[in-house]
Amino acid sequence: MVAADFHGVFPYLVSPIDAAGEVKAEVLSRLCEDLIGAGVHGLTPLGSTGEFAYLNWAQRRRVVEVVVAAARGRVPVVAGVASTTIADAQMQAREFEQLGCDGILAILEAYFPLADDGVYDYFRAVAEATRLPVVLYTNPNFQRSDLSLPVIERLSRIPNVKYIKDASFNTGRLLSIIGRVEGRMQVFAASAHIPACVMLIGGVGWMAGPACVAPRASVELYETCRRGDWAEAMRLQRPLWALNQAFARHNLAACIKGGLELQGYAVGAPLPPQAPLSAEGLDDVTRALTTIGALARVA
Amino acid sequence: MVAADFHGVFPYLVSPIDAAGEVKAEVLSRLCEDLIGAGVHGLTPLGSTGEFAYLNWAQRRRVVEVVVAAARGRVPVVAGVASTTIADAQMQAREFEQLGCDGILAILEAYFPLADDGVYDYFRAVAEATRLPVVLYTNPNFQRSDLSLPVIERLSRIPNVKYIKDASFNTGRLLSIIGRVEGRMQVFAASAHIPACVMLIGGVGWMAGPACVAPRASVELYETCRRGDWAEAMRLQRPLWALNQAFARHNLAACIKGGLELQGYAVGAPLPPQAPLSAEGLDDVTRALTTIGALARVA
Amino acid sequence: MVAADFHGVFPYLVSPIDAAGEVKAEVLSRLCEDLIGAGVHGLTPLGSTGEFAYLNWAQRRRVVEVVVAAARGRVPVVAGVASTTIADAQMQAREFEQLGCDGILAILEAYFPLADDGVYDYFRAVAEATRLPVVLYTNPNFQRSDLSLPVIERLSRIPNVKYIKDASFNTGRLLSIIGRVEGRMQVFAASAHIPACVMLIGGVGWMAGPACVAPRASVELYETCRRGDWAEAMRLQRPLWALNQAFARHNLAACIKGGLELQGYAVGAPLPPQAPLSAEGLDDVTRALTTIGALARVA
Amino acid sequence: MVAADFHGVFPYLVSPIDAAGEVKAEVLSRLCEDLIGAGVHGLTPLGSTGEFAYLNWAQRRRVVEVVVAAARGRVPVVAGVASTTIADAQMQAREFEQLGCDGILAILEAYFPLADDGVYDYFRAVAEATRLPVVLYTNPNFQRSDLSLPVIERLSRIPNVKYIKDASFNTGRLLSIIGRVEGRMQVFAASAHIPACVMLIGGVGWMAGPACVAPRASVELYETCRRGDWAEAMRLQRPLWALNQAFARHNLAACIKGGLELQGYAVGAPLPPQAPLSAEGLDDVTRALTTIGALARVA
Repeated sequence: MVAADFHGVFPYLVSPIDAAGEVKAEVLSRLCEDLIGAGVHGLTPLGSTGEFAYLNWAQRRRVVEVVVAAARGRVPVVAGVASTTIADAQMQAREFEQLGCDGILAILEAYFPLADDGVYDYFRAVAEATRLPVVLYTNPNFQRSDLSLPVIERLSRIPNVKYIKDASFNTGRLLSIIGRVEGRMQVFAASAHIPACVMLIGGVGWMAGPACVAPRASVELYETCRRGDWAEAMRLQRPLWALNQAFARHNLAACIKGGLELQGYAVGAPLPPQAPLSAEGLDDVTRALTTIGALARVA
Repeated sequence: MVAADFHGVFPYLVSPIDAAGEVKAEVLSRLCEDLIGAGVHGLTPLGSTGEFAYLNWAQRRRVVEVVVAAARGRVPVVAGVASTTIADAQMQAREFEQLGCDGILAILEAYFPLADDGVYDYFRAVAEATRLPVVLYTNPNFQRSDLSLPVIERLSRIPNVKYIKDASFNTGRLLSIIGRVEGRMQVFAASAHIPACVMLIGGVGWMAGPACVAPRASVELYETCRRGDWAEAMRLQRPLWALNQAFARHNLAACIKGGLELQGYAVGAPLPPQAPLSAEGLDDVTRALTTIGALARVA
Repeated sequence: MVAADFHGVFPYLVSPIDAAGEVKAEVLSRLCEDLIGAGVHGLTPLGSTGEFAYLNWAQRRRVVEVVVAAARGRVPVVAGVASTTIADAQMQAREFEQLGCDGILAILEAYFPLADDGVYDYFRAVAEATRLPVVLYTNPNFQRSDLSLPVIERLSRIPNVKYIKDASFNTGRLLSIIGRVEGRMQVFAASAHIPACVMLIGGVGWMAGPACVAPRASVELYETCRRGDWAEAMRLQRPLWALNQAFARHNLAACIKGGLELQGYAVGAPLPPQAPLSAEGLDDVTRALTTIGALARVA
Repeated sequence: MVAADFHGVFPYLVSPIDAAGEVKAEVLSRLCEDLIGAGVHGLTPLGSTGEFAYLNWAQRRRVVEVVVAAARGRVPVVAGVASTTIADAQMQAREFEQLGCDGILAILEAYFPLADDGVYDYFRAVAEATRLPVVLYTNPNFQRSDLSLPVIERLSRIPNVKYIKDASFNTGRLLSIIGRVEGRMQVFAASAHIPACVMLIGGVGWMAGPACVAPRASVELYETCRRGDWAEAMRLQRPLWALNQAFARHNLAACIKGGLELQGYAVGAPLPPQAPLSAEGLDDVTRALTTIGALARVA
């Protein structure tokens, strides 16, 4: 297990699956290797971009196994645990700890609406099932439940609940969270936020799909923010934002997988019935990647 | 396999699970036996009320196995297939056909938004994986995708797609569907609709959780509608509607499980972190059940 | 003032306005005359279809003046009062009573969200400003506030609050209202509901735009429902529903104005920046009107 | 008319109205005088905080008249034009120019949904009715229509459409707008945004209600951002954000009016049926204002 001080750029990894439903270990390993080579600070399998909601348990387990092996302890691996029930989520967290992960990204799936107490109970139960640090993940755009400020405050008092990634579009909410948890919890940005802004208000990094296809530019932006050189950070931020915008316009997993295919990683398309990236999406992504130098300019 | 002309009252069965995660076969079998004795026209395991979204595949498979065994061919068993991927949904449908089900209730789960073509592809794929009649199920209140009228029309042209259960609150939409599918597909009501109204406009029955706790009153209402005695149907409908209202105010699974516990079935509470029925909910359900004679009046 | 027992078909009248912003009194009068000739039971100026939200006070006042004059006491005129403030709504209600209206359709506009007590205060204040019977109107599709069941129950205890028109798509809610107000308040359907269903569950009629262009078919449906001939009612209902569907697909005011233009009433288009009925909408409306005999079949 | 280069802190003024419906000119004038004395860069009557949606035309006209007179040309006055129709909006814009305003804040009210072309037509029409610079204002939280990026881009090509205030919670959208309009339009933040972040990404100031009660702290923050001293800006930003949070939790107009009453301005409560600030809200506001020194600490 590497040190538990998570910060910086954590790409949300895609999950490459072949036609027979098998995880493509070789391409996933190579992607991890290249991302570490590009300087990312951690790896996050089974986030939204990783299509956790489209994989069965065997596939999820295998994805994590491959990523942990590829990381070889050089950067922390924070794996996504996602379920509708406490029992299943705890099983996942225990298995991921067993597999050698360094942190748990905790996601609550829901079908029926859930009151605040139920939300709290779920995340507390995940934290109790593991000794690893836990990153709370809430994405009100795709998930049926959300984390209220009072629940976040209560959760921040659990010793190993140390981070939160809030994927709402509401940057002000991040500042409200930071004000409320008084240092007991650190905040990561999602791709819906402008990373430079989140760093300015006190965030410690970002966990997001686009970092998979733009790791070098992401790391450079992070380091510039850490130096407090905000004018330069905004100069780097603008072309990177065009990339996030492309991802916001299209299916997130299709976009990142499409971008990686352009870069030579045979990660395939998202699992059906999800559509592969459209021709228009491919144009958007190609243009954005070319601008930031993450794709050779087409002749 | 019993005859494939589905109509009438199909209770959405609960899924009783013990603390170890095992399906309580005995109590589920007894419930099925009693419902058949009360005259219901079919059984539907793994609908919303059946907490399909909270069960793993082993639990789902076992629930269906128990219900098929309990039904003994007397009424059709229509089991819920629900997934985010085509591959997984097809596997489920094939297994349920193998287990002896008489129909498939097809449910689409989604995380990222899905365009109409993806929705169509999913349901067509489920239909192609089985020879059984398929009931489309859409519930825009809890599910992240919905079935548009054009997609429903396209799906109605697939030979074994023969029914739809639309759980929106919009009864007018049911009449629009009936007008559009020109007899190729039949419509079942959900608990959000007034069954007497849906029967009046041409529906063939209802698939809903409340029928679990009020089977006799439901069957009587159905038969009255079929006779075209609409004044009498409304007389029966009013107290039954109070029951549906109670279910709309509280977590659906908690309500039906709570009502069945009151009637002496040890089905337990919904799976955590869902909360059991609140004291206020218990009052609501007790009052509604007592009024329709589905619960002995408390001394 | 005519008798205050409102029931039957109340067309939501359009508001024909010329390029100079003047109410086209002649065409509006002729429309009223023809609707009364076709047997409608009342007239409702300044509903949603009447573009109340697009007219200034002078225009609203003039529309009501013209309609009252045209009705000549033969059918009740129920005029729409709509505002964000109590003071303005009370002024409108007093003026409309002064002008000779027979009832008030009370509409709450809101910008900031309003708690239940504020909603109650508004409608109570309107009722207190007039001796006329009041019809509550709630349309959660277009309005920023809604009427909860507890507020409806409280309002039903005010002597002159005697009717409610609920334009949600939720027919079950109407049955819940009927069960809750215990006869103190009567329910009208809106164009989002199937009128035959609302009559079956105990409604007393409907207030809706489509009745402007299909008054005879609407009155025939109403009378068939009143006779309790539900099979015949559904035979009449089906082609009429196609008309409501056309209106649901396009801007409501544009649709009714477009349909009336086809029938020879020079009511013009909705006020800019609203668009006139599109070519596709015109096709939809033409087809629906022709089917029910409300438009001569084109050669 | 003062110079048309708008930037800096523009408080959204409240509209003090007495029981008879008259604008309280004296208190409004004194507030304007004090705000100018505190260094604000402009004044904005008839924004959301100014309850434009609750005032009739005579009241709106009077509010603007009072503010223009109080400003005496020292800072620009940008008055809110809001309507559902083009005709009415153009009339308002012409009158406000006549009254001596320096800019128009253009707001689109809608009842029926409006397609992009209608939205564009409305704002273009307002711009054509005046020679003053126009600030587009969109607030998807309270208004029924929104401005899409393509519409914003089209509008940015109209010569006197020079600014936009976007009150969504989505700060990333502001960066997308800035990237898209290529300098033809400048961006103001709303109270939903963190001003320091909006200044960092290229905004030119903020138009917001809270600046009414915290003008000095707002101006200091603005100047610190302009100097590029971002660490100091965040130090000033944090306590100011607590103020914005208080306003987000309660009715905006009630909050600002409540805060001003605490500071000795007899602006009254928002217009009924809106509720005055609750006791809990008063506590929140008192605490936030005391922390930033905008209210004498209670003994």
